[in-house]
Amino acid sequence: MAVGQPNTAPLIPIDGVSIGVGCAGIKKPNRQDLVVFQLAPGSSVAGVFTTNAFCAAPVVVAREHLKQGDIRCLVINTGNANAGTGQQGLEDAHETCARLAALKRIEPEQVLPFSTGVIGEYLPMPAIAQALPNVVAAMSPNHWSDAANGILTTDTRAKGCSRQFEYQDETITVTGIAKGSGMIKPNMATMLGFVATNANVAPEILQQLLTAANERSFNRITVDGDTSTNDACILIATGQTEAPAITSADSDVYRHLLKTVSEVMLELAQAIVRDGEGATKFVEIAVEGAKTTEEALSVAYTIGHSPLVKTALTASDANWGRILAAVGRSGVAELDVDLVDIWLDEVQIVSNGERAPGYTEAAGSAVVAQEEITIRVHLNRGEVSDRIWTTDLSHDYVSINADYRS
Amino acid sequence: MAVGQPNTAPLIPIDGVSIGVGCAGIKKPNRQDLVVFQLAPGSSVAGVFTTNAFCAAPVVVAREHLKQGDIRCLVINTGNANAGTGQQGLEDAHETCARLAALKRIEPEQVLPFSTGVIGEYLPMPAIAQALPNVVAAMSPNHWSDAANGILTTDTRAKGCSRQFEYQDETITVTGIAKGSGMIKPNMATMLGFVATNANVAPEILQQLLTAANERSFNRITVDGDTSTNDACILIATGQTEAPAITSADSDVYRHLLKTVSEVMLELAQAIVRDGEGATKFVEIAVEGAKTTEEALSVAYTIGHSPLVKTALTASDANWGRILAAVGRSGVAELDVDLVDIWLDEVQIVSNGERAPGYTEAAGSAVVAQEEITIRVHLNRGEVSDRIWTTDLSHDYVSINADYRS
Repeated sequence: MAVGQPNTAPLIPIDGVSIGVGCAGIKKPNRQDLVVFQLAPGSSVAGVFTTNAFCAAPVVVAREHLKQGDIRCLVINTGNANAGTGQQGLEDAHETCARLAALKRIEPEQVLPFSTGVIGEYLPMPAIAQALPNVVAAMSPNHWSDAANGILTTDTRAKGCSRQFEYQDETITVTGIAKGSGMIKPNMATMLGFVATNANVAPEILQQLLTAANERSFNRITVDGDTSTNDACILIATGQTEAPAITSADSDVYRHLLKTVSEVMLELAQAIVRDGEGATKFVEIAVEGAKTTEEALSVAYTIGHSPLVKTALTASDANWGRILAAVGRSGVAELDVDLVDIWLDEVQIVSNGERAPGYTEAAGSAVVAQEEITIRVHLNRGEVSDRIWTTDLSHDYVSINADYRS
Repeated sequence: MAVGQPNTAPLIPIDGVSIGVGCAGIKKPNRQDLVVFQLAPGSSVAGVFTTNAFCAAPVVVAREHLKQGDIRCLVINTGNANAGTGQQGLEDAHETCARLAALKRIEPEQVLPFSTGVIGEYLPMPAIAQALPNVVAAMSPNHWSDAANGILTTDTRAKGCSRQFEYQDETITVTGIAKGSGMIKPNMATMLGFVATNANVAPEILQQLLTAANERSFNRITVDGDTSTNDACILIATGQTEAPAITSADSDVYRHLLKTVSEVMLELAQAIVRDGEGATKFVEIAVEGAKTTEEALSVAYTIGHSPLVKTALTASDANWGRILAAVGRSGVAELDVDLVDIWLDEVQIVSNGERAPGYTEAAGSAVVAQEEITIRVHLNRGEVSDRIWTTDLSHDYVSINADYRS
């Protein structure tokens, strides 16, 4: 189950990025579960990673390698998260890098490893070692769609997106893929995301851009409030363009690239929500009139994580009492409930902290019967707005997570 | 569905407490939905209430009346929470008090009102006005069990408990009833609880005792993390005993009464968890080796609210990866994950942040197949321990909350 239609627009290759996809049989036989990215020399790479204190072995290794710079390859496996695996897990992540490095005649430190899947089991190293040469033998710039499929776990759809803009008579392209469906409450980016551009961007500027774009996209979605141990989002700039390098964040082209990368990442983030485990609704929660961003997000996430709100959404029940109760317990200091207004799309359900005059059950029900819904809360105590995207909590969520060992 | 056997021991009447129960037809016809407590003159009454900013009208009124002291009656309706009802809701709560006061020839300020049920609908005042005289006409000290039934909503069982101890040749009895099944994450006490004793306790000492007992019981349970708008727990001391008054918290008898009240409230709180919406498991989450209580509770509630942990419990899946991921995202500052140990009952599943040596899936599965499970986490960074009680997240939770308008 997933909400709305998948993005089927073709993914545009990025000059300087070549991709290989193959089968290692990590969790299931005969599925593509191993992906390698190769980057042109001189590419800049930036990354953001999970804030979960129990971060997975590949996250530890990728962070280390990223600090050293001059990254030339990424290697991603699905089916096994290599998390909670201690020293052995770190050794396995290092060995994966070393094996790919040997095939590509680069240093192990030039490889970033990523894993997603079940927690607490060791990587099947012989299977990975056996599959890597085949993956490397069939690299192509045109494998973005295959890669989008090759990193999925409980996802029901591949997630990819491309955007382009013109800069100094050159076309700058941004293409990204992501995976994620459950354990989604990015505090960074729950999931794996890989975004590349042919723009020429210095590494520190690229990191700044990624952090900003991430804050507007992956850090604003939640399915179940569970921040994963393996979250990572990588942004690659190959510089394979005649357009000048972007060397300052205070420039129109930086802002243009930030806007474009943000659009790609937001589309990927929203695709993750639409494909949230058991999702039948795609819900935007917008909070306005807050004093601070923290306050706005606290209200938004309290609503977005409330099992009672989420089950009401599943039932297409315009249960404004549960929304109101969630606002009330969100921990906003000295909240004056008599100022709170709430809308479902354009239908006002709460006015000054109580049922809006003229509100009818029929009007509310018509909104929540839709697949896509906006819950808008106005606190009327400040000037700050923010918003997140989430799903409902359905029987299928329970089935998926009571059956799937993740 | 509920976990374990209900407490069927008879509830012991409290001298000075008389109870009436009747049918007002508030939500459903022919069910007992209106309860009145009458207290002997000179009774002390203490209360703790929801911290939800959107507290219900009866909570506002009960807080006001309690401040004035000399409480002689409580009136409780189920089927309607009188929350999110604005000025009309306050007037209805006041009118309920006034009508009972007129029948009992006391002042309206001597009545505490309580409501539980659907949010956002006005109380059916004519129905309540019509039923009150019948309720008042049939008061008895022996109606505790009827009252325990008369305050239920989605609960599947009545919840009551009595304890006694001897003090200066007198028997001190503590009897309590409670309701609650969903919207359970007391920050105070999600639910309604009414506990009475014949001990003679000054009001300020009684409030101190209630706050302490509450912190050990209702403030340590969660079903779904949703703090209700109507939570209230009331402790009554009728003083109908020949034993001396308890005038200081620094006395053996205070400590004995605190222990006894805490036991009654903990049994009631655990009964709420056992009867949690859709519950198939009763889970204690104990966190040890924390630096502070906040830290211990943060870890405990992050585990207890994780939809992934809760669905794994439903499936009897010893999914330690999900527990570990929840510990990791609980927000404990500078958590050294390499020190974390986790047990399911006596089976160690995580040692030094990774799978415990010798742990077998069979051993873990045997524990989580049980109806009652303890998850014990040792952070090994301090001396503070705390624990909470919670349930799993089952299909029935979704069904109940996708069907029931609360």
